[in-house]
Amino acid sequence: MAELLKNMTVEGFADLTASDAPAPGGGSVSANAGALAAALAGMVANLTIGKKKYEEVEDEMKVLAEKADALRRELIEDIDKDSSSFNIYMEAIGMPKDTEEQKEARKAKMQEGLKAAAKVPMECAETAAKIFEISEAVVAKGNTNAVTDGLVSAMMARTAVIGALLNVKINLGSIKDEAFVAEYTAKIEKLEKTAIEEEKKILGMSDLSDKLY
Amino acid sequence: MAELLKNMTVEGFADLTASDAPAPGGGSVSANAGALAAALAGMVANLTIGKKKYEEVEDEMKVLAEKADALRRELIEDIDKDSSSFNIYMEAIGMPKDTEEQKEARKAKMQEGLKAAAKVPMECAETAAKIFEISEAVVAKGNTNAVTDGLVSAMMARTAVIGALLNVKINLGSIKDEAFVAEYTAKIEKLEKTAIEEEKKILGMSDLSDKLY
Repeated sequence: MAELLKNMTVEGFADLTASDAPAPGGGSVSANAGALAAALAGMVANLTIGKKKYEEVEDEMKVLAEKADALRRELIEDIDKDSSSFNIYMEAIGMPKDTEEQKEARKAKMQEGLKAAAKVPMECAETAAKIFEISEAVVAKGNTNAVTDGLVSAMMARTAVIGALLNVKINLGSIKDEAFVAEYTAKIEKLEKTAIEEEKKILGMSDLSDKLY
Repeated sequence: MAELLKNMTVEGFADLTASDAPAPGGGSVSANAGALAAALAGMVANLTIGKKKYEEVEDEMKVLAEKADALRRELIEDIDKDSSSFNIYMEAIGMPKDTEEQKEARKAKMQEGLKAAAKVPMECAETAAKIFEISEAVVAKGNTNAVTDGLVSAMMARTAVIGALLNVKINLGSIKDEAFVAEYTAKIEKLEKTAIEEEKKILGMSDLSDKLY
């Protein structure tokens, strides 16, 4: 098995992304953006904990730091999941299609692959969308010296959510299961709205970024 | 000297960001976002080159891939530059301040540090802003199978530019050199406008994302 993407160097990951290798692409990059969004939100919480000036929010910041930690770990794993989900579909493409039976089996496997390739970025988008409440809380109550880190966190989370959803959408177009498509379409709309509104709200909380939108 | 951030693993970089270590923070993360934006734009160009269907744009794609390559390399270096620029200021903070002379020298060094800490993310923002023309061209004329990668590229570039500029702004507030501040303020406004408008334009080019804004 090839080296996991999460174990590549920052530079190596960017280099491989740029190449014509099938993975990593926008899906893995979105998961990486989400992991960094969670990391920045957690960093602001960690820079607030233990400071006399922020004693009152210490307990809240500890909870936020732990939540951010869990989201970061999950999104780091999503970097590799996104690439491996793609493989089921590629396997299906390579299946024999000589008899009607084989054709049906191949089609079914392709549908399975497409659903997996939609499910993985959907989970990534759902996970990344949970970062906003942390970014918002740390920008509102966290160490003001790190406010820009909280703002960048919100921007990275928006990119992670919408980027992952683009990868859901592109697969959704070929999925025949109408109930699946309807369920996912509703989820997409809700998550896109959340990502855009939450980021806007958080950027509006600092005079460094409140004129942007 | 500590390990360069670009040589850390993707996971290790995210972990260190989350910690209360002074670096990496939003500045380095923005540079990383820029590098990934350039990587994705380059990837779409590379997935277009050599395909019969896209023969007509082959030469253009080769030029775009090379440009994206150069921007990615520059932005990868910016990940570490951002953190090291911070050190001049931290050194100044530690300088003696017993005599008037020492106080003046310390103040001057602090101003120097602040200017460096504004200059590095400004260069990062300027570099990342050059990605949009590549994202736009690959979304418009590149391999349509990779269109989502081009769209994620535009979103990552927007986050990179605005994120880097937040780090310029936060330092600008303490810089006494009025000409420097005026020059930088004008640059910031222009780059912010570019980032927001370009991303919006590029997202509007695909029916996967044209309803977002």
